[in-house]
Amino acid sequence: MKNIDVCLTPDLLHLHKLNNSIVVVTDIFRATSCMVTGFAYGVRSIIPVATVEECKDLQNRGYVAAAERNAQKVDGFDLDNSPFSYMDERLIGAKIAMTTTNGTLSISKAKSEAVKVMVGAFLNLSAVVNHLKNQPYDVLVLCAGWKGKPNLEDTLFAGAVVSALKDEYFVAEDSAILAMRTYEQAKGNLSAYLSNSSHIRRLQGLGIHKDINYCLQNDLYDVLPVLRGNELVNV
Amino acid sequence: MKNIDVCLTPDLLHLHKLNNSIVVVTDIFRATSCMVTGFAYGVRSIIPVATVEECKDLQNRGYVAAAERNAQKVDGFDLDNSPFSYMDERLIGAKIAMTTTNGTLSISKAKSEAVKVMVGAFLNLSAVVNHLKNQPYDVLVLCAGWKGKPNLEDTLFAGAVVSALKDEYFVAEDSAILAMRTYEQAKGNLSAYLSNSSHIRRLQGLGIHKDINYCLQNDLYDVLPVLRGNELVNV
Repeated sequence: MKNIDVCLTPDLLHLHKLNNSIVVVTDIFRATSCMVTGFAYGVRSIIPVATVEECKDLQNRGYVAAAERNAQKVDGFDLDNSPFSYMDERLIGAKIAMTTTNGTLSISKAKSEAVKVMVGAFLNLSAVVNHLKNQPYDVLVLCAGWKGKPNLEDTLFAGAVVSALKDEYFVAEDSAILAMRTYEQAKGNLSAYLSNSSHIRRLQGLGIHKDINYCLQNDLYDVLPVLRGNELVNV
Repeated sequence: MKNIDVCLTPDLLHLHKLNNSIVVVTDIFRATSCMVTGFAYGVRSIIPVATVEECKDLQNRGYVAAAERNAQKVDGFDLDNSPFSYMDERLIGAKIAMTTTNGTLSISKAKSEAVKVMVGAFLNLSAVVNHLKNQPYDVLVLCAGWKGKPNLEDTLFAGAVVSALKDEYFVAEDSAILAMRTYEQAKGNLSAYLSNSSHIRRLQGLGIHKDINYCLQNDLYDVLPVLRGNELVNV
């Protein structure tokens, strides 16, 4: 039987073998929620890069560039890290370059070894789950976390994926069990469960409560961003 | 206000500053449960060492030596990793050297930087909690995990400590919130909550169901193992 596991932070990714796994990267607040929204609104491709310098270089070569550090937009870039910034008709057909504190780093770390890397958020949960049901590979949900530490919102999303796939996959590892049970405890009211989380406090300090509620909605979009070479495309 | 945090595995310890913290190391199945039991039965001191070679060297110098790898006793040593092996009157006043897959490594990692390192298990939960209530430092509960990955039983113990101290300490970090809520969800029946965990399956394969039930009991002993120099003593 296929296995599903969860890696609670990219700092633990070295403990996982990925050569037979599809990796689902999630960074709920807000990188992967932005990516999913962008594709839903017609973005053509997104190149995730690890550093601000790489992102600047792509901007100079004509990409629409988005750079976030410490939950804030970096000066001199085109887009901030709010999903609402991606609901813009000027982005239809656009090629975007993106770097974020946690999310794009996680994609970079996973891509060399995994069978396939895709991007998940509550906004496209069912698209992710339905795709995985028919795959012959193991699955690892990789939580972007916060600067190497686990966080609640990505753990909840990982738990939602495990919970939805528990009949098709073997749930053997403690991180996967922990994430699944946490999600099942919280799913009636994710927003209340997260109300004391560290990143919610960080984001509320920036006045973006609207983003939080938006990112916690299930299945707004039937899009599936998958890495092809160095760029994410909607398959 | 003092802070309490949880590190879900020693592979994430580099993300924590320890210079104002007391570190409580836990390895429920079974290193710290063995240590607590040993002190309750009259052991004089326990030197935790990271490698089997160091443990052998101390055995040659007269220590009672205990070495475990992959949940099994290493050949040529005096004690295995069952807490029942520590209920032996020949160990009264003994000096023990111990190495285990996860627990003693975690102690080694914490000791250079922390204000104080102590050892916790469900067996001495109240002794740990009551001591910490009156300390002026931050607290980090360090879960030994399994070969670098988080596990359920150590996370539950960490959550029990956070839950008991939440009025005296600020619970700000997501790992601490996650552990606390997991414990509060599971505390009515820890054994049932753990029934599918990876280490329970590993231990059941070794036929040590009795050890599992023993290690999940609260407050059998009023002992508090604290590191003094290189050795743990009961203070």
